[in-house]
Amino acid sequence: MRALAYFKKGDVHFTDSLPEPKLTSPKGLLISPSFTGMCGSDLHEITDGPIFMPKDGETNILSNESLPLAMGHEMSGYVKAVGPEVTKFKVGDRVVVEATISCVDKHRWPNAKNANTPMCDACKDGCENCCDYAGFSGLGVVSGGFSETMETIEHHVVKLPDFVPMDIAALIEPLSVAWHGARVAKFTEGKTALVLGSGPIGLAMTLVLKARGAKKIVVSEPASIRRELADKFHVETFDPSKHGERAIAELRSIPEGGNGFDFAFDCSGVAPTFNTGIAAIHYRGVYCNVAIWGKGINFNPMDMTLQEKNLTGSIGYTVEDFKQVVDAFEKKKIDPKECEHLITGRIKIEDGWEKGFLELINHKDTNIKILLTPNNHNELD
Amino acid sequence: MRALAYFKKGDVHFTDSLPEPKLTSPKGLLISPSFTGMCGSDLHEITDGPIFMPKDGETNILSNESLPLAMGHEMSGYVKAVGPEVTKFKVGDRVVVEATISCVDKHRWPNAKNANTPMCDACKDGCENCCDYAGFSGLGVVSGGFSETMETIEHHVVKLPDFVPMDIAALIEPLSVAWHGARVAKFTEGKTALVLGSGPIGLAMTLVLKARGAKKIVVSEPASIRRELADKFHVETFDPSKHGERAIAELRSIPEGGNGFDFAFDCSGVAPTFNTGIAAIHYRGVYCNVAIWGKGINFNPMDMTLQEKNLTGSIGYTVEDFKQVVDAFEKKKIDPKECEHLITGRIKIEDGWEKGFLELINHKDTNIKILLTPNNHNELD
Ligand SMILES: [Zn+2]
Ligand SMILES: [Zn+2]
Ligand SMILES: [Zn+2]
Ligand SMILES: [Zn+2]
Repeated sequence: MRALAYFKKGDVHFTDSLPEPKLTSPKGLLISPSFTGMCGSDLHEITDGPIFMPKDGETNILSNESLPLAMGHEMSGYVKAVGPEVTKFKVGDRVVVEATISCVDKHRWPNAKNANTPMCDACKDGCENCCDYAGFSGLGVVSGGFSETMETIEHHVVKLPDFVPMDIAALIEPLSVAWHGARVAKFTEGKTALVLGSGPIGLAMTLVLKARGAKKIVVSEPASIRRELADKFHVETFDPSKHGERAIAELRSIPEGGNGFDFAFDCSGVAPTFNTGIAAIHYRGVYCNVAIWGKGINFNPMDMTLQEKNLTGSIGYTVEDFKQVVDAFEKKKIDPKECEHLITGRIKIEDGWEKGFLELINHKDTNIKILLTPNNHNELD
Repeated sequence: MRALAYFKKGDVHFTDSLPEPKLTSPKGLLISPSFTGMCGSDLHEITDGPIFMPKDGETNILSNESLPLAMGHEMSGYVKAVGPEVTKFKVGDRVVVEATISCVDKHRWPNAKNANTPMCDACKDGCENCCDYAGFSGLGVVSGGFSETMETIEHHVVKLPDFVPMDIAALIEPLSVAWHGARVAKFTEGKTALVLGSGPIGLAMTLVLKARGAKKIVVSEPASIRRELADKFHVETFDPSKHGERAIAELRSIPEGGNGFDFAFDCSGVAPTFNTGIAAIHYRGVYCNVAIWGKGINFNPMDMTLQEKNLTGSIGYTVEDFKQVVDAFEKKKIDPKECEHLITGRIKIEDGWEKGFLELINHKDTNIKILLTPNNHNELD
């Protein structure tokens, strides 16, 4: 089948001959992806990896699979086939697939070396994104959504409301990353939030915080192109580069009371956003990292201690987040029209490398989400 | 009156002629301290200060007071006089005095420059230890418990149960520091905790976690003298220096399940305890800093993010902590006998510099709490 696959370090390319997956689990489903988004994690895997992908000649600990593997973990699509124990879905259903692979999936690969180890503590508690073995469909464990057909299990599939178009549905993944961050931070209605960075996750976080009833959202972003994207969501935006050393004091003065934000979500992950996020929150406020960090920074725990501030971080999501995001669409708390601003490209899977990954690498600031159409079924008309 | 006072940078000494305080507030009380503990913060003020104390020639923002000021903020004593609006105490009552000075106290000094500013947000919420102007009786704002008589207001005074001796009552302050830390960390009964460091706060934390129903407490301390003090509390102790690079793995294996602690309380505040604390907690665990840090450290937010860990910090206490600690004594959850292990010296106030502060400076590892007797009323028989 056609796929955009990771063959080895430094070699990701389109192929028309990746083996078609078959149903392997009685709870399995085959999915025909309609749209699959490209993501910073994919780029990271390409430029700095293999991180999640197996190394050349090795196999994944959960699935025993080896390279090549189709990439793509942000997919909407149609159910193409269902296993005998699938009860909630039928062929033709419009769905979104949650990509985390964890202890919950072990039974799919009874011959893999980890098949019979006990569930890890995180998975026992339903926190599969914190699984000791966590990986993704499309990122390391098994082929993902940059392919004509992918396999998953019922656990990871959520039905789409009719009014959510397939391209918008491919955004449910980044929205779920943000949604999970808001849950980890214990964000509640009526609170104020500072979003640091308006890349894909910063913008998704902004939509999520709106959906969750934030009283005030300020998006801080020095790059004007990206800041203007946040403006489209009718939240306050802030250019830290215009305020120099006064930036933190200015930010703190924005929420009612003038003493900083209840929450800061770091969607950039660099020393200035970290320091700003910590300094711009209120006493007992919460700084939540949602970014991927490379190296560490200098940090003095007194910056948290004197005002009893809280620091946490969130990565990934579980299917519960997908369900809650879909529910937010149903309740009109997330507007599909508004989500369209996140999509900056729709291209055929054949063009995935040149017009997709290379475009993202070379024009980082002007792109948010480029979607591939793995089946090319009139999605691009 | 007799007092051990801070005269100026580098000059702390006993005096017999500090002016006696008078009742200035209708809600005021005069207290005769029986025992007042010496503390790391006092030492810090002496060796690196002035930190809380006014600089020479300056006055405190809340009280308008200038040097000299009696030190001492960990005091038990008797009520000596009460203002006309005091309703809960009478002369002769055995009490403990909570030392935090905040917006709650502003009315005591109507002529000070800050007297008429609005209450800060933290104080409005009852978190006076996070007050924008926070200081202490005995550390910066007004004379404290290293004196024959000190003034406070009803808000800061808690009655002592008869069975708690006055020397043990002077430990209610460090116990409240630890108690507040457990509250900030949201420690709950049945959880496991790692205590990093068994100095005064680490030992107080150990007693507090026992009182709060910890399922398992491990105290990690490389200095054998200090570790042996923790042994007296019948908790598990751990010598990280014996395990080298295996120390974190060993610690993580101790709690049931073998995946780390629910909570870590850093009572040392150095890079190794920070790194151990973060690494030794479970996914979604809580690291709470209760130490005073000088410089910062290298920190990668991914260390919190991959397992959704939480980092917070606690400093000081409010009178609510004092009440809860006294209540824990009442309910026999803290045993006065066990607390005695914290007291390593009882001396006359006249000897406070030589046998107190100099002893603490020169023999840090063998001393926990040295108590002064500001009134020398047979406390030392
Ligand atoms: Zn992604
Ligand atoms: Zn797991
Ligand atoms: Zn103290
Ligand atoms: Zn205040």
